[in-house]
Amino acid sequence: MPAHRVSPLSIRSEPAQAGSRTWNSDLAQHAGERVSISGWLHHRRALKSVCFLILRDASGLAQVVVEDAATRAEVESLPHESVLAITGDVVASPQAPNGIEMHRPEVAVLSRALEEPPVELFRPELAAQLPTLLDTAAVSMRHPRRAAIQRLSAAAVEGFRATLRAERFVEIATPKIIGTTPEGGAHVFELDYFGKPAFLAQSPQLYKQIMVGVLERVFETAPAFRAEPHDTARHLSQFISLDAEMGFIEDHRTVMAMTTRVIAGMVEAARSLDVERLLPDLRIPEVPAVISDIHFTEALEMIGGATGEDLRSEPDLAPAHERWLGEWARREHGSDWLYVTGYPVAKRPFYTQPDPARPAWSNSFDLLFRGLEIVTGGQRLHRHEEYLAALASRGIDPAGFAGYLMAFRHGMPPHGGFALGLERFVAQIAGIANVRETTLFPRDMQRLTP
Amino acid sequence: MPAHRVSPLSIRSEPAQAGSRTWNSDLAQHAGERVSISGWLHHRRALKSVCFLILRDASGLAQVVVEDAATRAEVESLPHESVLAITGDVVASPQAPNGIEMHRPEVAVLSRALEEPPVELFRPELAAQLPTLLDTAAVSMRHPRRAAIQRLSAAAVEGFRATLRAERFVEIATPKIIGTTPEGGAHVFELDYFGKPAFLAQSPQLYKQIMVGVLERVFETAPAFRAEPHDTARHLSQFISLDAEMGFIEDHRTVMAMTTRVIAGMVEAARSLDVERLLPDLRIPEVPAVISDIHFTEALEMIGGATGEDLRSEPDLAPAHERWLGEWARREHGSDWLYVTGYPVAKRPFYTQPDPARPAWSNSFDLLFRGLEIVTGGQRLHRHEEYLAALASRGIDPAGFAGYLMAFRHGMPPHGGFALGLERFVAQIAGIANVRETTLFPRDMQRLTP
Repeated sequence: MPAHRVSPLSIRSEPAQAGSRTWNSDLAQHAGERVSISGWLHHRRALKSVCFLILRDASGLAQVVVEDAATRAEVESLPHESVLAITGDVVASPQAPNGIEMHRPEVAVLSRALEEPPVELFRPELAAQLPTLLDTAAVSMRHPRRAAIQRLSAAAVEGFRATLRAERFVEIATPKIIGTTPEGGAHVFELDYFGKPAFLAQSPQLYKQIMVGVLERVFETAPAFRAEPHDTARHLSQFISLDAEMGFIEDHRTVMAMTTRVIAGMVEAARSLDVERLLPDLRIPEVPAVISDIHFTEALEMIGGATGEDLRSEPDLAPAHERWLGEWARREHGSDWLYVTGYPVAKRPFYTQPDPARPAWSNSFDLLFRGLEIVTGGQRLHRHEEYLAALASRGIDPAGFAGYLMAFRHGMPPHGGFALGLERFVAQIAGIANVRETTLFPRDMQRLTP
Repeated sequence: MPAHRVSPLSIRSEPAQAGSRTWNSDLAQHAGERVSISGWLHHRRALKSVCFLILRDASGLAQVVVEDAATRAEVESLPHESVLAITGDVVASPQAPNGIEMHRPEVAVLSRALEEPPVELFRPELAAQLPTLLDTAAVSMRHPRRAAIQRLSAAAVEGFRATLRAERFVEIATPKIIGTTPEGGAHVFELDYFGKPAFLAQSPQLYKQIMVGVLERVFETAPAFRAEPHDTARHLSQFISLDAEMGFIEDHRTVMAMTTRVIAGMVEAARSLDVERLLPDLRIPEVPAVISDIHFTEALEMIGGATGEDLRSEPDLAPAHERWLGEWARREHGSDWLYVTGYPVAKRPFYTQPDPARPAWSNSFDLLFRGLEIVTGGQRLHRHEEYLAALASRGIDPAGFAGYLMAFRHGMPPHGGFALGLERFVAQIAGIANVRETTLFPRDMQRLTP
């Protein structure tokens, strides 16, 4: 390497600092001081003698009182959503929204909006229809209620991770581009991979099982893709799949106990956000230490007995049956939550562990929340010969599974896991009917933008 | 709803508990007790009078001493990687690997391996070549050194998130399936989206900028996809992109200061893992409170002065130049780290903010670590008219960007951000030459399985 010496003059040792800025939520701590706040022109009310500006930043709203005529003229010419930096006196004022407001403002326009926004963000509720909200997501997302849903979503996913980390689970990242379609190829997106066909992963299932052989307890929080031709309030082409898998379990009940702890952690994280004020339909549930459970066959018997339907040969629960069970759990157990166990093996994926005592039923479970399936899980097969038999009985060629089956050739413990869709979880606890409202930029059959 | 009453007998209130199990790493706390451990048959040494088993679980290794003839016969017949549960007496023993071993074991075989594993996992280093390791990932990943790399990766990504959460950043999830190719369509995977063409996102760049308008400070840790036709040690088709973006910055230096704090948080998280024992090439770096920086033009001048090359019209830094700068930073500043700022606008993406004083150069930066670019970032344009001009000057049709440009029509603050690839970061700090070794199941031009 050259020995030529270079002057160190080019090195600046101090990075520039952003000007000191006060968050709107912290204004009350600065009563009597002159401080600077920054944000978006959320709302404006021009009265005869005074103009009230509401400035929105990520922490909340602040009221600014403009009396000076020149400043009034300037701010009254600005479209909503213009970006401002305002320096002023912080004054306690019982009439102001948070008991605090800013007087004698100097206003700097950081970015002037070109025109009024396509939706009125200052109203307590957005009046526009869902397609308009989604088309204008870059702006409509700024509504405090919609932004709060995103904070709720971020808190829930971190609650999932934090609970699992505390239980010695290790985070993993698995491939989203796969060479074969694990479960028959229905509803899978196909892509061109350097001239070869490939597919987008519908779930990290096979990879998380392999990783139980490596780290015993693993989780992933990543996008999953389903080309579902269902245009419903519950289906998205891309969703965030929260997945966990653990080894050395007794049976599916070990997984259910872990699921209950994780759901409690997610709910706790959501509760700590304090967004109830913004989301009036939010009903953050209690999660009991132990959630009641009922076997699939008993559930069908009970529903049949109550409704008069003959459900004895039903292979699955219909949405109406899940709703019935949700109301029953609330009535009988005072709980929003209910595990249904023992779904028929024939309706579950090939890796599902049958119940040793009744092999037509499985060591699987769904967790219902207010009558809607919100988590699915169970014990998996763990012996190589069981996999060969399960694939053969379904007519699936094991050749496509060589990299997965290798794990089972070389010793896998009894294991199981669970998965839930983040968007659906958030929609359910926030009392939101359509899962698209809990997704920043949803993807469905019709929608590929923005 | 039916009033039919159902017996609550079907409800079991206590979930089954997994049998009490001691982790290998906790054995020393149980000296003198009889406990149960579980894991994989990692290694076995059969001596004349005794057989030593090494059992591996997620927490580490444990030595088990087998003297009983029948038990010896059984365990000596087992292929490595068979899964065992062993109950025995915990005995302090200075000669044993961790000063502790298990005597008088009762061994239960939970899962018998079919055959010996394709790679010898008990050796301190895996002897196989990389293609073999990747083909046999389901087993080769179990090697303690490879598993430790995954723990390092999990710690780094959580260090990224935790640092940003503490700085009021909010996690987001953006679409990985997009309708248009933002930066010209090179190296993008195309897929069939319900009969329409769509693409896999190369970066969340445009979405994270939109979200600055909503939450001011956002981050995402998610897969990104690049159809790069480069078969090198540094390129993957899928990688984990760690992205952050923040509003109300002064200029790119605000972003650099944040980047330094985040990198320090990632390094701190990696350090807390205590995996140095397993990864002898690991050299977890110090991150200074302030990392030195040098302007692109000054860097070229300095390298040219030292090497005699005429670099005045170079538009970018070649890898050899980055390496030269890395050695220079170590020599002159005693640092593994160096920011290079002010890259030519022409070589940066359209959203890059030019330097107001020298508009051919930009308010951008790369962070070099030991002479390799590891983070890239900068200030972005924030005014609508600047975007129209930047797109026009590059001949890009703004129609494909309508959903993105809407954010700038309606007020965006000065903002910027940064991104880094998790796999490359982990490879660099762990002293691993090929990024495929820091990826569970890598995807490249040739590799689509396992």
